[in-house]
Amino acid sequence: MTAEQLLEEVVGRFLASYSGPGVVGVSGGADSVALLRALVAAGRSVTAAHVHHGLRGAEADADEEFVRGLCQRLGVRYEGRRVEVSAWGRNVEAAGRRARYAFFAEVAQRTGAQWVAVAHTADDQAETILHRLIRGTGLSGLRGMAAERALALPGGGTVPLVRPLLTVRRQQVREYLRHLGQEYREDSSNRNLAYTRNRIRHEVMPLLESFNPRVVEALCRLGEQAAEADEVLARLSQDLLTHAERPRAGDKVVLDAEVLQSAPPLIQRGALRSLWQREGWPLEDMDYTAWHKVTELCNRSEGAWDFPAGVHLRRHGRVVLLWRES
Amino acid sequence: MTAEQLLEEVVGRFLASYSGPGVVGVSGGADSVALLRALVAAGRSVTAAHVHHGLRGAEADADEEFVRGLCQRLGVRYEGRRVEVSAWGRNVEAAGRRARYAFFAEVAQRTGAQWVAVAHTADDQAETILHRLIRGTGLSGLRGMAAERALALPGGGTVPLVRPLLTVRRQQVREYLRHLGQEYREDSSNRNLAYTRNRIRHEVMPLLESFNPRVVEALCRLGEQAAEADEVLARLSQDLLTHAERPRAGDKVVLDAEVLQSAPPLIQRGALRSLWQREGWPLEDMDYTAWHKVTELCNRSEGAWDFPAGVHLRRHGRVVLLWRES
Repeated sequence: MTAEQLLEEVVGRFLASYSGPGVVGVSGGADSVALLRALVAAGRSVTAAHVHHGLRGAEADADEEFVRGLCQRLGVRYEGRRVEVSAWGRNVEAAGRRARYAFFAEVAQRTGAQWVAVAHTADDQAETILHRLIRGTGLSGLRGMAAERALALPGGGTVPLVRPLLTVRRQQVREYLRHLGQEYREDSSNRNLAYTRNRIRHEVMPLLESFNPRVVEALCRLGEQAAEADEVLARLSQDLLTHAERPRAGDKVVLDAEVLQSAPPLIQRGALRSLWQREGWPLEDMDYTAWHKVTELCNRSEGAWDFPAGVHLRRHGRVVLLWRES
Repeated sequence: MTAEQLLEEVVGRFLASYSGPGVVGVSGGADSVALLRALVAAGRSVTAAHVHHGLRGAEADADEEFVRGLCQRLGVRYEGRRVEVSAWGRNVEAAGRRARYAFFAEVAQRTGAQWVAVAHTADDQAETILHRLIRGTGLSGLRGMAAERALALPGGGTVPLVRPLLTVRRQQVREYLRHLGQEYREDSSNRNLAYTRNRIRHEVMPLLESFNPRVVEALCRLGEQAAEADEVLARLSQDLLTHAERPRAGDKVVLDAEVLQSAPPLIQRGALRSLWQREGWPLEDMDYTAWHKVTELCNRSEGAWDFPAGVHLRRHGRVVLLWRES
């Protein structure tokens, strides 16, 4: 299959599932330019949303000009936003991501879009999974980026955020653009090895590819399997919580310890994680050791533990009590 | 905790679960020498089993001499075996592993040992998981090496093969030996970068540690979680197979398609994999695509597919028929 046929097929499949007009995030890089061109070629009404991060001076100005000009030639509505770098936190990459998605949601609301598409490829997915593997992750982190998730609109409600190119290789995107004779911008910050993500792309990936040229596909498949497994396990965990929970005692959550113990520790931890989320208790400080402590206590006949962020657990006879200091 | 306390604690926990005399595989390298010393220090009766692979000439002779001498000084029974390299297949590493375990089983049987211990560390475990990630693996491969598995004895029956040091870092093992003033042999083939495993150890791991110095622990934890998840999913898959199976039609396996379809595709694939194993049908050619083809067919109302190695699948109305050409 040629790169052109592949992109047509992938975008066709995407458009068959998502009707109505949409928003595409377009940085001006190869991936987003290709997605925009393929959506326009399929005849769908789209708005291109571009965020100028103000980090790269004249280069960012030129990116903005490039995307604006491309939209004019394609007859596509253009929406741009400049974001103040000074307002960002320490993690520039994460802050940039948040700013982009907030802007895409705003444009989706204003234009009545039914979906928002971003152009992450299989290579981005493999890099994400690898990054999480290196930092330390459980199964749910191995899922990588979702092919679809809900994006909150500023006025309430959600719109699907979709990644149609998540199974397409970066190389195939470039071949498609070459075939069209379509230019794109190279973001010079992609080559800055001070960013962890760029080091993963330019140092770790090539080393792993020297062992297995198809390591990107291998990581993406593992991610898909992890997503399937995580969904099955989350369902079991939620069912366990439902079966184990008893009426509250004042402000305290009451769980039946024998019901909890009937499940494997992995599912017990999942049930307690669901509880933590439902109660809005902070999850940040709940690390591997803390979750193992939770299940250890649930499987003893007596015990007490005070978790970070003021969550308390008491095991008495048949029940486990959990509450947070107010 | 000092390295000495750590090794004592880990080996103490191991010996509390495994009674009677045992066999330890001792190559003469740091890890196996440390395990032998710790077992002897704990007062347990052990036999050291050493395999001379005949690959490294005088160096291998010196390893053998070293292990024999160490056993004499420690008052430990020594069993050695020379293995013919010429008899090995193309994959020298895998063939060496098989030869070692076969010899350990033979010694276990001869000495009436209740267990066999090998000295793989957390570093070995992380390298195994990483190797599998690179080659391409599903969740079950992410488990890495089992902390315990059954080792078949030549005369029938099994003995547990245990890895007591699987949570201990290589560095801690070396500190323990330094504390004892105990020497060990360096295997020069560990530095041969023609072996994939050595490149993972000496090139990939140090690069990943430059991102996260605790990447070994991160990979080992992921492996533990994958093992827990895999066990839960295998149980669900086995239950699904039990519920879906109907009496055979001649030599054909009959499955109820509606029962299969009630489960998520991941569990359907697991159930069919269990069936493949139970029937003794070859698994080598069943790759990612083939397993996805199986579930796709089970979820259609009609269809036929002929899998590698002569396994046939037919979907008719309510049933799925599977059989292998004889």
